[in-house]
Amino acid sequence: MNAKPVVYHIPVCPFSQRLEILLALRGQLDAVEFRVVDITRPRAPDLLAKTRGSTALPVLELPNGTILTESLVILRFFDEALAGRPLRRVDPCEHAVESMLIAREGAFTMAGYLFVMNQDRALREEHNEKLLALYRDINGFLLEHSPEGPYLFDAFGLAEAVFTPIFKRFWFLDYYEAFDLPEGTEYDRVRVWKDACMSHPETGQVTREEIVKLYYDYALGTGNGALVAGRSVSSFTFSPEWKDRPWPPRDKHAGSASDAALGLLPEIF
Amino acid sequence: MNAKPVVYHIPVCPFSQRLEILLALRGQLDAVEFRVVDITRPRAPDLLAKTRGSTALPVLELPNGTILTESLVILRFFDEALAGRPLRRVDPCEHAVESMLIAREGAFTMAGYLFVMNQDRALREEHNEKLLALYRDINGFLLEHSPEGPYLFDAFGLAEAVFTPIFKRFWFLDYYEAFDLPEGTEYDRVRVWKDACMSHPETGQVTREEIVKLYYDYALGTGNGALVAGRSVSSFTFSPEWKDRPWPPRDKHAGSASDAALGLLPEIF
Repeated sequence: MNAKPVVYHIPVCPFSQRLEILLALRGQLDAVEFRVVDITRPRAPDLLAKTRGSTALPVLELPNGTILTESLVILRFFDEALAGRPLRRVDPCEHAVESMLIAREGAFTMAGYLFVMNQDRALREEHNEKLLALYRDINGFLLEHSPEGPYLFDAFGLAEAVFTPIFKRFWFLDYYEAFDLPEGTEYDRVRVWKDACMSHPETGQVTREEIVKLYYDYALGTGNGALVAGRSVSSFTFSPEWKDRPWPPRDKHAGSASDAALGLLPEIF
Repeated sequence: MNAKPVVYHIPVCPFSQRLEILLALRGQLDAVEFRVVDITRPRAPDLLAKTRGSTALPVLELPNGTILTESLVILRFFDEALAGRPLRRVDPCEHAVESMLIAREGAFTMAGYLFVMNQDRALREEHNEKLLALYRDINGFLLEHSPEGPYLFDAFGLAEAVFTPIFKRFWFLDYYEAFDLPEGTEYDRVRVWKDACMSHPETGQVTREEIVKLYYDYALGTGNGALVAGRSVSSFTFSPEWKDRPWPPRDKHAGSASDAALGLLPEIF
C-alpha cells in the first residue's frame, strides 16, 4: 500500500500537466507521488490489471486501493479532496460557467491533435478551419462571460488549468503547420486568454522545445509512442533526453527523418 | 425577468429528463419552470440570441440572466444550488467514482443513436458490437465498484439520473433493431443496473410508446425534427399527440410510412 496517492503518467502529457498545475497552485505538489510510465514500452501487467486493460493515462491510485481515471475526474477530485481553498469557483452559478467552458475542451483538443496528425495536404484547410471555428466559439463565450479578461474570472482558475496544457501542446501546430491565430475581433478575446494562461508562472512544467521534439511522431501521423515506419526509436523515448537532440524538420510531409538525424540513437560505449 | 429559473426543452429529450428526475428526487419540481420548444419549427430568435446561435437543448435561463447550457452542467448546477441534501455522493472519492461512470455516457449515447439512425444493413452488426462493447465496459466498471448492486452506491444517485433517460431512449433499439442485451456474466451486472434504473418510480416521465412513436424519424436516419423525404410532418410534432397515433412500422428499411399511416395528419374541420 502506498502512503500517498500515486499518479501514473507521462510527464509530457497534457492531461497530467493539469494535475501538476492544480497541485502547484494549491501549494501541494508533495501531496502526490508521480510515477513515470514509458509509453514506448509494453505496459506493466500490474498497472494494466488495475485499469482493467485500459492504457489511458493518467491513472490515480489512492492509498485505499481505489483507481481513478479520466483526467478531469482526477483534477476535480484533487481540487475537492485537498485541504484548503479549492481552485474551482465556489459559487454554483460561477462554477457552472467555468464547467461550460471546460466542456468545450474535448472537441478543441481533438481538433488540434487530428490537425497535427493529418497526413493529407488536401485536408489541411479543413482541419485549420475546424480549429479556428472552435477558437471563435471560445472567443464568443469569453466575450459573454468575461469581456474584460484576461481570465474567465478574477484569477487563473479551473478552466485555465484545463486548457493551458492544451494551448502548450498546440506549439506543435505552430511548428509543423505554421498555425497562427488570425488577427481580429473574432479571435482577440481568446488570444488574450490564451496568452495569459500560457504565461502564468505555475504552468512552466513543459517547454516549447520539449513539445516540438517529443511530438514529432504525431506530426508524422503516429501517436501514443507507436513506431514510425523506418525508425527504431519513438520520439517519445526518454533516452536520449529531448534536450540532447536537434530540432526535428518542420516539413511533416517529407517523410520521417532518420533516428540518427533526430538524435534518437544512444551512444554506444 | 423571470422569478424562477427557466428550462427551455423538448419533453421527450433525454438530456431534459435528467433534470426532471433530479428535481423529482430532490422534491423540488416547483423550483423550475419548464418551457416547451417545438423543434419542428424554426427556433425563436430571442432564444437563439441567448444561446449565441446554438440550437442545443436544454437551455437554462437564471433569474439574473445567466444562460447555462450542457445537460450535465445544468444537472450538477441544480444539484449544488438547490437547498437540501444533494444527489451526488458527498465523499470526494465516491463522487469521483460516480463521475467516472458519468464520463462514459457520451460515447454510450452516441453509439445507440448512431445505431438506430444507421440506414445500411451491412453496418448493423458493427453498430451492435460497438454498443455491446460499451455495455461490457460498464459491466466491468460496476463489478469493480459495486459488485452487489443494484445501484452504483446504496441508492439511485447522480450516475443513475444521467443514464436512465438514455436506457429509456434505447427502447427505440428494442423496437427498430430488435436489440437485446445478451445473457451471460459480461452483461449480467449492467442488466441489473439498467433494470433498477428504469423501474425506479421517479423515472416515469416518458413511456416506451412515446419514445417509439416520436423517434420513428430517427430510425429512418433523420434527427432533430428535420423532415423525412416524402413526408410533410415530423414524428416529433406535438399535434396530433403521440397517444392518438398508431405504432409505426418496425421495419426501418422499408422506407417511411406515409403521414396518414403514421397518424400525423391533423383532422380538418
